[in-house]
Amino acid sequence: MRQTLDFLLFDWLNAGELTSRERFAEHSAETFSAVLDTCEKIAREKFAPFNRLADTQEPHFDGERVHLPQATHDATRAYAESGMLAAAQDYDVGGMQLPCVIEMAGNAFFSKASVAMGGYAMLTSGNASLLMAHGTPLQREVFAKNEFAGRWFGTMCLSEPQAGSSLSDIATRAELEDEADALGPRYRLTGNKMWISGGEHEITENIVHLVLAKVPGPDGKLIPGTKGISLFIVPKKLVNERAELTGERNDVSLAGLNHKLGYRGTTNCLLNFGEGRFTPGGRKGAIGYLVGKPGEGLRAMFHMMNEARIGVGLGAVMLGYAGYEASLDYAKQRPQGRPMTAQASAGPSQARLTPSGGDGRSADGSGANKFGKDAASPQRPIIEHADVRRMLLAQKSYVEGGLALELFCARLVDELATGEDKAGAQALLDVLIPIAKSWPSEWCLESNSLAIQVLGGYGYTRDFPVEQYWRDQRLNMIHEGTHGIQALDLLGRKVVQQGGASLAALATRVQQTIERAIQTDWAPQANQLAAALAQVGSATKKAWSTGQPEDALANAVPYLQAFGHTVLAWLWLDVALAVGDDSDFAQGKRAAARYFFAYELPKIAAWLDVVARRDPLCRDIKPEYF
Amino acid sequence: MRQTLDFLLFDWLNAGELTSRERFAEHSAETFSAVLDTCEKIAREKFAPFNRLADTQEPHFDGERVHLPQATHDATRAYAESGMLAAAQDYDVGGMQLPCVIEMAGNAFFSKASVAMGGYAMLTSGNASLLMAHGTPLQREVFAKNEFAGRWFGTMCLSEPQAGSSLSDIATRAELEDEADALGPRYRLTGNKMWISGGEHEITENIVHLVLAKVPGPDGKLIPGTKGISLFIVPKKLVNERAELTGERNDVSLAGLNHKLGYRGTTNCLLNFGEGRFTPGGRKGAIGYLVGKPGEGLRAMFHMMNEARIGVGLGAVMLGYAGYEASLDYAKQRPQGRPMTAQASAGPSQARLTPSGGDGRSADGSGANKFGKDAASPQRPIIEHADVRRMLLAQKSYVEGGLALELFCARLVDELATGEDKAGAQALLDVLIPIAKSWPSEWCLESNSLAIQVLGGYGYTRDFPVEQYWRDQRLNMIHEGTHGIQALDLLGRKVVQQGGASLAALATRVQQTIERAIQTDWAPQANQLAAALAQVGSATKKAWSTGQPEDALANAVPYLQAFGHTVLAWLWLDVALAVGDDSDFAQGKRAAARYFFAYELPKIAAWLDVVARRDPLCRDIKPEYF
Repeated sequence: MRQTLDFLLFDWLNAGELTSRERFAEHSAETFSAVLDTCEKIAREKFAPFNRLADTQEPHFDGERVHLPQATHDATRAYAESGMLAAAQDYDVGGMQLPCVIEMAGNAFFSKASVAMGGYAMLTSGNASLLMAHGTPLQREVFAKNEFAGRWFGTMCLSEPQAGSSLSDIATRAELEDEADALGPRYRLTGNKMWISGGEHEITENIVHLVLAKVPGPDGKLIPGTKGISLFIVPKKLVNERAELTGERNDVSLAGLNHKLGYRGTTNCLLNFGEGRFTPGGRKGAIGYLVGKPGEGLRAMFHMMNEARIGVGLGAVMLGYAGYEASLDYAKQRPQGRPMTAQASAGPSQARLTPSGGDGRSADGSGANKFGKDAASPQRPIIEHADVRRMLLAQKSYVEGGLALELFCARLVDELATGEDKAGAQALLDVLIPIAKSWPSEWCLESNSLAIQVLGGYGYTRDFPVEQYWRDQRLNMIHEGTHGIQALDLLGRKVVQQGGASLAALATRVQQTIERAIQTDWAPQANQLAAALAQVGSATKKAWSTGQPEDALANAVPYLQAFGHTVLAWLWLDVALAVGDDSDFAQGKRAAARYFFAYELPKIAAWLDVVARRDPLCRDIKPEYF
Repeated sequence: MRQTLDFLLFDWLNAGELTSRERFAEHSAETFSAVLDTCEKIAREKFAPFNRLADTQEPHFDGERVHLPQATHDATRAYAESGMLAAAQDYDVGGMQLPCVIEMAGNAFFSKASVAMGGYAMLTSGNASLLMAHGTPLQREVFAKNEFAGRWFGTMCLSEPQAGSSLSDIATRAELEDEADALGPRYRLTGNKMWISGGEHEITENIVHLVLAKVPGPDGKLIPGTKGISLFIVPKKLVNERAELTGERNDVSLAGLNHKLGYRGTTNCLLNFGEGRFTPGGRKGAIGYLVGKPGEGLRAMFHMMNEARIGVGLGAVMLGYAGYEASLDYAKQRPQGRPMTAQASAGPSQARLTPSGGDGRSADGSGANKFGKDAASPQRPIIEHADVRRMLLAQKSYVEGGLALELFCARLVDELATGEDKAGAQALLDVLIPIAKSWPSEWCLESNSLAIQVLGGYGYTRDFPVEQYWRDQRLNMIHEGTHGIQALDLLGRKVVQQGGASLAALATRVQQTIERAIQTDWAPQANQLAAALAQVGSATKKAWSTGQPEDALANAVPYLQAFGHTVLAWLWLDVALAVGDDSDFAQGKRAAARYFFAYELPKIAAWLDVVARRDPLCRDIKPEYF
């Protein structure tokens, strides 16, 4: 993976050029590489060996405390000590001032080694970054800096049991207690928060919860919708202005751990705020400090949305990558049967198109002379079977393409922060973020399934890692905005906003790649991509041709799928143009690109067909018909 | 499900007409229904409540004994007492003389309730049926009858650690000890068998292993290929001619249990034969009795292949069905957000195609007035969301279509046994069996994933059953011939055998449905199906146009996928023609059929494209390019 990562970063995305920007002036290609080296080493030594342990020794709540394997403590500690929690932050808050694309690349190693153990750090970094952007100077000093230092970890508390994707329906209530608290206007919070990753543990001495809640209006009622949502810092243990623990426990308690299919190394919690289990200051109610202005909580929470969604997408890619590498390794080692292709190189084929005897089970091995194969010859590694190669090539196209997508998006985040064409970067990011989140969640799940299939029965056992990758992966289509939510975001908003400006910006970039490719051996793929782009554009128009959202959005997920495959085809073409030589590495990239165009891109026709017809079948079916 | 099952059996497949055949003359629609009632009841009471328990209390080997939950003992006992082990057998061996299609339909309830707990019985029934076909009268009396009675359970021992799909490479050796043993020519077996479901347990007092092994030639060497494979009865505990346990343990021992991703309620074992752990008759070597003739073991073992593969396919369908019902139930109960369609019925739409504020996460709920939705109104059940309906409709089309497929195939097994056109049934079965095995394994896995998605975060927890269904399901693409093996069987043998006669037989049947449909409202789908059938035929020819198996079979799996979808479209069209009225039930069937044609069948173009082009990419990529 490292070679591909370096190629994508430094050759394809020219990440080295970022050092010419003032913010990154003290960096060089060498310091970037050194960061990657460090991450790779810590991930290999502290995370990967314990990924299965973190799965089997699931977090356990004894009613008082949550127990985690010692390995999780050690791994997160090593991560914190590496400085990666503050990788992108300013030097003066202890950061490394790394570009987002390098930070993401570094984190990729941890996601690959143990996505669940890596979860605590990713959440903490995002939490603290949000406070850097929206908190008061003292909130940054007290909370963010101690999170960056790894002294405290952080969470994001959005969902509630009765309100998952529908944040407008959250019911956690925040009542003002003291407008003038030095740590920020002080409120008392009451409510329940569900699906809180890292919501309870004893890895760090404190946990900084960022909590969405509603401040009641003058009539004491909560305001419907998202307008009334504000953001609060709710520490598990109360702290003073000098960031010292006061010794008082805040009224936040663990109602229970969720027992999950996968991703078990990260605790996932139902938290009760203000139920009176603890009584800070002598009374019930969780103390929370307002961040930013009242009613702007959602805006603040989603300040870090691009990074959060790229992070989820990258995590999905790396789970896929881990499965790809495990199955590739297996396929090279495992002897089984005799491929038809191997025999072809041994001499002229004896095969004839005639029915053979034997049974159906081993069409691949039951007949001694089936298709001219010689049963007396030794079995060959399964990588020599065409269908195993297909499964490996599919995985390669998913995971390397996915990596290109996530790094491309991270690079755009850098353009947004320090580049010259911020508007252009914003426009592209707007349409790419739903893809960055959703595409690897879906296709690297397929990739993980193919990895199991390559290993056969062994892949179905817990003696090999591929089944865990597949289970861990299944979360990614659900959290951080479900697949359905991403689809509505893309078709309902991003591609139509500002008269379709974001979609146009993407089309321009795709067109540039097509124009370069049309001059090369890649002309057929360039033409295929041009046709795909036109189909996406046409389907977008037809979907919205009645102007009715219920018409347009009835098939938002097939649209998302087609859009994603088109974006990936574009990136693969662009990557293929960037590999120059005839090395095995370059040939592999070309093969994966060709695979994507031959086997994957043609799938979009079926998806776009229902979009363009505004097929009302799903929207209109009556519940009683099921 | 029962309504759909009854409709498919009695209205669509006319299973009631089977009672006019001599073998089933004592049956009636009422006795068939009574069997289904009994199965439904036992499955509901003895299997379903313990499906999670069988997963969490995984089989445990203490070095001496294998421990299973008591519930597994109770459930399998109840199954045996129902008489279903011998459902299809003659009355004079204690059977019920039921048609295969009724036996399968009855077993469907157990697969749905707990596919893993049901595994022991399915294996036993298959094992004993094989002995009825190929065993001596005494082998039937001693072994098969005691299996049908549930006194002993059975296994199928094919795979070995070094030979999974490639049976020609098995190395278990069988050496003749006494040609004249009353129980059959007696051999001593030595070797290891892997992936043996039900290979060890204490549910029954004995286990009857059916074992493939090779008898060495005069030179003492094993014959390469499948020709040398013979079949043996190897009881765990030795028995005499009166089927009494002799008190002597055979030399078969459990080397270890496989710890699986799912399907945990069925033990899965590595068994050592003849390692000397036990010394029957004073010496090492597992005693085995030859079944049938030497060298014809594979043929005998695959005598029951149709039923075995329909059984796996049906198990896959029922796991899908279980997930569909669980997610449908959840979708009707769970309030979340406000669908655009719900608002449409409340009054004229206020929606405009303009960018809205808010964030990307809750494109579906973040804006109070987004798409005219009123955040102050109560949340609505998620079944009102178009995308949830899409996920439910997809599941419905997969699981009900899959059920139609399996029952159709089971009905053909009855035609083969007791019908008039045996050759016609054989031809159809030949091409349909790879689909019956593979299609639900793949698409009901997708169905199970959609069920998780409908439940969102809750679906990812172990508090709901859908994650287990998904894990259990993942086995089905692997066992009983992998997906790749099924694809080679279909494209490499079945569709080309006898000059393509089987494919032609299928085409004739499909054409009959098209001709009936073309006269109805289903004419567009009929035309679409005709085009699909033509594409499959054309791709088949093009794949084989060079006559080279390595060309034709390089894309066997995409061919299998396209073939499967075409078959399912045909069956859905046929089912749609069979529902007459305007009941909710009938409307639901029509909606699922329309869904399949609109959303699924168009996928075949992408799959067949690479087949027809004989795309050599996967076949030719060099291992070092990965």
